[in-house]
Amino acid sequence: MIYITRKASFNAAHKLARPDWDDEKNNAFYGKCANPNWHGHNYWLYVTVKGEVDPETGFLVDLKWLKDVMNTYVVDKVDHKNLNLDVDFMKGILASTENLAIAVWEQLYAPIAESGAILHSVKIYETENNFVEYLG
Amino acid sequence: MIYITRKASFNAAHKLARPDWDDEKNNAFYGKCANPNWHGHNYWLYVTVKGEVDPETGFLVDLKWLKDVMNTYVVDKVDHKNLNLDVDFMKGILASTENLAIAVWEQLYAPIAESGAILHSVKIYETENNFVEYLG
Amino acid sequence: MIYITRKASFNAAHKLARPDWDDEKNNAFYGKCANPNWHGHNYWLYVTVKGEVDPETGFLVDLKWLKDVMNTYVVDKVDHKNLNLDVDFMKGILASTENLAIAVWEQLYAPIAESGAILHSVKIYETENNFVEYLG
Amino acid sequence: MIYITRKASFNAAHKLARPDWDDEKNNAFYGKCANPNWHGHNYWLYVTVKGEVDPETGFLVDLKWLKDVMNTYVVDKVDHKNLNLDVDFMKGILASTENLAIAVWEQLYAPIAESGAILHSVKIYETENNFVEYLG
Amino acid sequence: MIYITRKASFNAAHKLARPDWDDEKNNAFYGKCANPNWHGHNYWLYVTVKGEVDPETGFLVDLKWLKDVMNTYVVDKVDHKNLNLDVDFMKGILASTENLAIAVWEQLYAPIAESGAILHSVKIYETENNFVEYLG
Amino acid sequence: MIYITRKASFNAAHKLARPDWDDEKNNAFYGKCANPNWHGHNYWLYVTVKGEVDPETGFLVDLKWLKDVMNTYVVDKVDHKNLNLDVDFMKGILASTENLAIAVWEQLYAPIAESGAILHSVKIYETENNFVEYLG
Repeated sequence: MIYITRKASFNAAHKLARPDWDDEKNNAFYGKCANPNWHGHNYWLYVTVKGEVDPETGFLVDLKWLKDVMNTYVVDKVDHKNLNLDVDFMKGILASTENLAIAVWEQLYAPIAESGAILHSVKIYETENNFVEYLG
Repeated sequence: MIYITRKASFNAAHKLARPDWDDEKNNAFYGKCANPNWHGHNYWLYVTVKGEVDPETGFLVDLKWLKDVMNTYVVDKVDHKNLNLDVDFMKGILASTENLAIAVWEQLYAPIAESGAILHSVKIYETENNFVEYLG
Repeated sequence: MIYITRKASFNAAHKLARPDWDDEKNNAFYGKCANPNWHGHNYWLYVTVKGEVDPETGFLVDLKWLKDVMNTYVVDKVDHKNLNLDVDFMKGILASTENLAIAVWEQLYAPIAESGAILHSVKIYETENNFVEYLG
Repeated sequence: MIYITRKASFNAAHKLARPDWDDEKNNAFYGKCANPNWHGHNYWLYVTVKGEVDPETGFLVDLKWLKDVMNTYVVDKVDHKNLNLDVDFMKGILASTENLAIAVWEQLYAPIAESGAILHSVKIYETENNFVEYLG
Repeated sequence: MIYITRKASFNAAHKLARPDWDDEKNNAFYGKCANPNWHGHNYWLYVTVKGEVDPETGFLVDLKWLKDVMNTYVVDKVDHKNLNLDVDFMKGILASTENLAIAVWEQLYAPIAESGAILHSVKIYETENNFVEYLG
Repeated sequence: MIYITRKASFNAAHKLARPDWDDEKNNAFYGKCANPNWHGHNYWLYVTVKGEVDPETGFLVDLKWLKDVMNTYVVDKVDHKNLNLDVDFMKGILASTENLAIAVWEQLYAPIAESGAILHSVKIYETENNFVEYLG
């Protein structure tokens, strides 16, 4: 069993606010993250897959293939987008890093499984100072 | 003459789009940076001041004072904000990193001059891969 | 189960030396880390907690709360301090990174448990080239 | 149980190409990594060992000793070398990061076990954007 | 006058050795960098241009255009290549970082001048610990 | 004219306090940096030299030679030391980063001049968030 990780990044706007709470309640709970006019981040996404090394090729997965999967199912949908408004797989979900990591996992699990490798971890940095990891 | 630099960061939303251009023209020129629903960044701000070291204190400037100036005149106004909508010193200015660096310089020059030190450089990273420096 | 991590930093002095060993023996074992006049580091502290995402708020824990806990129980006690002389929770403990990580775990476990989340990992970087992780 | 990690780096040339495939087939599978005239990387190696802290010394292992082991068994053999041509423990092995991580594990397991600590993980970054971890 | 910088990276093999010196002399002068079987690096390239901000667009230069110029004239020619064997603009030039920075400058100066901006600096990191800057 | 930079690091203890001020005055001015029991940092030192590339060797200076000069005149004297107590070239000098950068410049200028290259800049990071540069 070996683990290989590929990093990507995307730049997105979001806010933390429940639509069924008023501004006062959202501000009280989410603080400056609830700014109605949005704020944003340079997110870093680390996707780790696990499996056996193919003895013929020396690869667990082809990283160009993994990059393409990450771009198709995640990065192209979130880069230079608004996580609350523009992203199909985040519709109706509060755009916390926790929820984003879970949603990215769900986007990637099946496409990666087609390669024979298994998705092990989705890790998302919102800033250099905080990140979330989801292992399924 | 010695130079001292302090780094700060802020997380903001913005878009690159001229209000007097339609969406098609903005998209053609600014590409995905023109997304009408915004995107965002973790900006890094480096402020460099220059001057003589005070022989009594060993300081060019007190970095806690410089941090306070940077927070009061810049960081508190842009962190978790929308650069196009929420920031007084960016009103009517296209929110490119070039224009932001010039505007931040203008915010900081006079307050820093009060300390006897001179603002030397404002450098802003929009991402790890691109940054702007303005020397006045 | 999801994992969220917050990073903090602190700047501290320490030395590696047993008080019941003489200088020669401490130098022989701990090398330059035993310098009697101390040396120091910019430590990075990563605290990871685990648990379930609250479906109402989208949070595992409020990171502002976690930051406050880390500051109150650890950072305020070690930042700009001498780990051997100034820190209550390191009294009588050799100030290796291993021992520091265990002591930080013991400081944080109960306060974090009050939130319903569980402390998963304390990771401390002494330099960019070495770090210790403690999982309890 | 505690985990301590030491980082090293080495600069090496390599290519990804099976000697029993012709250039066309290697190019089709490995892309630009198959360039017959080689390319290279600044590799980062993270070695993690686990065990109990020695109550007398406060150490899991002496990091100077671990550094020496890493240099003797790995870094001195690969730094400023060609992974395909110059490295005894990579003879006959395709120089993918997966295979390199496994081979480094095999180099380090026994020497580290002599200290009483146990090798837990070998992690190798080929670039900032991809890395492999092997846990044995 | 404002300065904007774009970063790129490329992974290449090279060696430091004069073809008119024998191995002994090359080893004596260049040390392990003269390894006949090559070694390699993840190079980082920072290209800084200077000029006036266009008041209509808020841009000094379009960074997508600058990225394309850097790719066409430099990155595509050196990435996953051997600097001594594969790169037209390094033919007959010893592949030190100093010479590489000067050669990259000469590749980029004219194409960048076509935009109206002026090439200010080419900075190349060979490792995290050493880099060269050339200002023309 | 070309510029080449080499990075080193050292881990040291220090405090900011004038011996002719009492604790109260030192605390009032230097804040937590005046802690009588010291604190410390992982300092990063960047030394930049300038000159002409030797057409025979492709080098401005031999980086191994520059590393040796930096170690002999600076790093070996400050690493794992107390900047206030242990360092000959800091005797009687308040251990601010400004004063340290000037003192390092004075240590390095003459030895580097012997190579024919010229010391251009000494830059010292006290933390990731602040650094001083001295150009002589």
